[in-house]
Amino acid sequence: MNLAHIGIAVKSLDESVPVFEKIFNVKAGEKEFVEGQKVNVRKIRLDNCDIELLEGTDPESPISKFIEKKGEGIHHVSFGVKDIQGNLDRIGDSGIKLINEKAVIGADEMLVAFLHPKSTNSVLMELTEPQTK
Amino acid sequence: MNLAHIGIAVKSLDESVPVFEKIFNVKAGEKEFVEGQKVNVRKIRLDNCDIELLEGTDPESPISKFIEKKGEGIHHVSFGVKDIQGNLDRIGDSGIKLINEKAVIGADEMLVAFLHPKSTNSVLMELTEPQTK
Repeated sequence: MNLAHIGIAVKSLDESVPVFEKIFNVKAGEKEFVEGQKVNVRKIRLDNCDIELLEGTDPESPISKFIEKKGEGIHHVSFGVKDIQGNLDRIGDSGIKLINEKAVIGADEMLVAFLHPKSTNSVLMELTEPQTK
Repeated sequence: MNLAHIGIAVKSLDESVPVFEKIFNVKAGEKEFVEGQKVNVRKIRLDNCDIELLEGTDPESPISKFIEKKGEGIHHVSFGVKDIQGNLDRIGDSGIKLINEKAVIGADEMLVAFLHPKSTNSVLMELTEPQTK
């Protein structure tokens, strides 16, 4: 497995993107809207992974709810895997709770699945794999 | 810059290490004690970065205090850089608050410096660089 991205919940992309651009000394990508999550995303590409800055566009967005409950900060970490379903089955069988027992289609048409943070010391972890067509 | 590791604060390495070993399907490294931080560390090596599980060994440890305040979860993210002092100066000059204006010697004899989470949407970010001798 490799770390694919770290998702950071922010109240305002307009305010936060320039901060992270300064820290990493690179320009963020264009804003993308993820309909299913009601989230605007801008990605900062590092040498070995991405930082995703996430802004809810609706109070019902998981990102808006996260910020309301916990404040801004790291929302999830995403790991790239081969055979996402095999990994989910293996992890679930080992007794770790899953949010998604079957991978679903997420942003960028990737297969994604979340593990349950109750099993992982409150770290929300996502597995991702490109779809094979 | 590249992501070097994600540090996760846990109450008990004995309880949490097996969980993360199952998820990543790899064995964690041996326990290391970082005297200056009063922290026990066990590292899980992924393909492109490490996961560091951190357990305070004293109520005064930054990790113990973090857990008391916020609960278990991601404590910091660490980025490998070349010319850590040049990066710190550049970032500080851009208006971002630093915890360490000068790099200090941290775990594994690395040069390390933290940015102030008040400037970074509550994400505690560390820069690291091997010492040149």
